[in-house]
Amino acid sequence: MAAALLVCDWGSTSLRAWTLDPAGDVVARAVFPLGVNRLAPGEAARRFDEEVRPRLGAAALPALLCGAIGSNVGWRAIPYVDCPAGLAEIAAAVAAVREDVWIVPGLRCRGLGGACDVLRGEETKAIGWLSLSPDHRRGHRLVCQPGTHPKWLVIEDGHVVRFLSAFTGELFAVLSAHSILRNDGQAHDPAAFEAGLAAAGEGDALLNRLYTARSRVAGDGAAPESTGSYLSGLLVGAEVAATPRLLGLVGERVLLLGDKAACDRYAVALDRRGVALDLADGEAAVLAGLVAIARLRGQL
Amino acid sequence: MAAALLVCDWGSTSLRAWTLDPAGDVVARAVFPLGVNRLAPGEAARRFDEEVRPRLGAAALPALLCGAIGSNVGWRAIPYVDCPAGLAEIAAAVAAVREDVWIVPGLRCRGLGGACDVLRGEETKAIGWLSLSPDHRRGHRLVCQPGTHPKWLVIEDGHVVRFLSAFTGELFAVLSAHSILRNDGQAHDPAAFEAGLAAAGEGDALLNRLYTARSRVAGDGAAPESTGSYLSGLLVGAEVAATPRLLGLVGERVLLLGDKAACDRYAVALDRRGVALDLADGEAAVLAGLVAIARLRGQL
Repeated sequence: MAAALLVCDWGSTSLRAWTLDPAGDVVARAVFPLGVNRLAPGEAARRFDEEVRPRLGAAALPALLCGAIGSNVGWRAIPYVDCPAGLAEIAAAVAAVREDVWIVPGLRCRGLGGACDVLRGEETKAIGWLSLSPDHRRGHRLVCQPGTHPKWLVIEDGHVVRFLSAFTGELFAVLSAHSILRNDGQAHDPAAFEAGLAAAGEGDALLNRLYTARSRVAGDGAAPESTGSYLSGLLVGAEVAATPRLLGLVGERVLLLGDKAACDRYAVALDRRGVALDLADGEAAVLAGLVAIARLRGQL
Repeated sequence: MAAALLVCDWGSTSLRAWTLDPAGDVVARAVFPLGVNRLAPGEAARRFDEEVRPRLGAAALPALLCGAIGSNVGWRAIPYVDCPAGLAEIAAAVAAVREDVWIVPGLRCRGLGGACDVLRGEETKAIGWLSLSPDHRRGHRLVCQPGTHPKWLVIEDGHVVRFLSAFTGELFAVLSAHSILRNDGQAHDPAAFEAGLAAAGEGDALLNRLYTARSRVAGDGAAPESTGSYLSGLLVGAEVAATPRLLGLVGERVLLLGDKAACDRYAVALDRRGVALDLADGEAAVLAGLVAIARLRGQL
C-alpha cells in the first residue's frame, strides 16, 4: 500500500525515520547520523527536506516527529506537557512547526528537590509500550530508558506521573572522547565492567570514584584498554544505585526499554543489585507510540 | 647572585618554572602553556630543552621537576612513594630522567574501598607548606588542593598519611567544552554558583543532579549564560560534601592550598556547609617544597 505518513524519532545522537501505510504498517525505514547534537542552529528544516524526505520517497507526506528535535537545540522548542500525562494529553499538545510537519511535545515534572525535570522522545516510547497491551496500562510500572540522558519513568494506569533524568550516556561519551579516561574503540571487557559496577558504591561520591578509573591504571597496573568498560560499569552502576533511591522505589522491578546493547548493560547492573527486570525493544516502542499518537490525531 | 638550580612545577594543564640562587631565592620565573595534557608522547624532553631552558637562561643548570611530568603521560613514570611519607621519604626517592634532570616522585595509598589512589605534585605543595613553619609540622591537618584532579590530604606530624582524589576540575572542563552544558567564556554568576551548591545535595546521585544543569534552562527559564557557574557550584559542592565523609572527617577544619580563584570557590562551598577553613597560596608552597627537597638532596 502507498505510504500515508512519515514518522521520525529524532534524538540527540541519531534520527530514525519510517514511512507508514494507512494501517500503520511500515513501508520503508532509514537511519541517519543527524542527531540534534550535530546540527548547526537553524539547520534542521533544510536537512529534513534535503536528506530525510528524499531518501524515504516522502517528499509530499505529512510528518510526525518526536524527540530532541522539539527542543531549543532542535527545530523549534515545543511547549512541554506537565505530568501526569498519558496518550490523550500528549496527542492533544502535538504542535506544527510548518504545514504538515508536526512535533510531539516532551514532558515536564518537578523532581529532585523541586527542580524542574524534562524529557523529549521518551514519552512516545512509553506511550508506545503502553499501547502494545491493555495489561501494560494497568497498575504501577518503573520504566528505565537508557540513552544519552537516561530517563526513569513512574507510570500509573497508563499515565506518566513523574520521572527522573540522568546524564550517564553523555558523561560516558565526553569522558571517553576528551578526558584522561579516553578509550575510543576498545572491545567490551566484562571483568572491567564488573569492577566498575563494584566501584560505583551506592551512587555516592562519584567525583572521587571517577578518579579510580585513572588511578587503577596509573598506580595499580590495570590495562589502559580496560578503561572504557570500567568507566561504563562505574557510571551505569552509579545511576542504577542512586535513581530508584531518589524516586523512593528501591528494589522495585524495572522495565528496561531501549536499544539492546545499552539495556543489556543496565540488566547486568540491576541484576548485581538483586533487582528484577524485564526488557522491551525501544525501536518497536517508539514506532508504536508514533502510530498511536497519529491514530488519535486522525493522521492514520 | 647567579642561578644554581632550575625548578619546575609541571602539571596537567601548565608549567611554572623558576631559577634559584644557592640560597634558594628566586632569580627568574616563567609560566608556559605546556601542561602534560597538551604534550605529544615523547615530547617533554625536547620542549624542556628548546622552550623552558632558553627562556630562563638555564641551558646548563641542573633541574628538579615535580608534578604530572613524572607520570606515564609525562616525561617518564617515576615510581610512587607509598604513604605515610614526609620530606625525607620523598627526597630520597627523587629519580633522574637524564643526567642533571631530576623528578620528584608522587605518592600512592589505598583509598576508597581499598582502591589505589595516586597524586603527583601535591606532595611537593604539601611538603612546602609544612616547611614554612614548625607549627605546621605538629598535629593533624586536612588539606584540600583544588585543581584538575583535586586532592584531599590527611597530614599527621609532618607526614602525608593518606589522601583521596576527585575528578572535579577535569569534569568541569570537559563538560564546559564538549557537552550540552557548553559554557565557554561566561562571566562568573555568584547566584547561579550558589544555586549549584544547593543542588549538590550531599554529593550523592551526581548523575541525576548533573541533568538539572540542562533542565533548569530547557524547562524552567534559567539563563543559558548561567550554566557554567551553576555547574561549577554543583561540582565543587558535591566534592566538598562527599570527600570529608569518605575520609571520616566530616566537619573538620580544612586548609585550602592552591590558586586563589579556585580556593575562593571552595571556600564559599565549605562555608555554606559550616566548615571552618584556612587559605594558603599554592605557588608559594610548591616553590618552598622544591627548595626543601633540593636542600635535603644537597642541590642548594
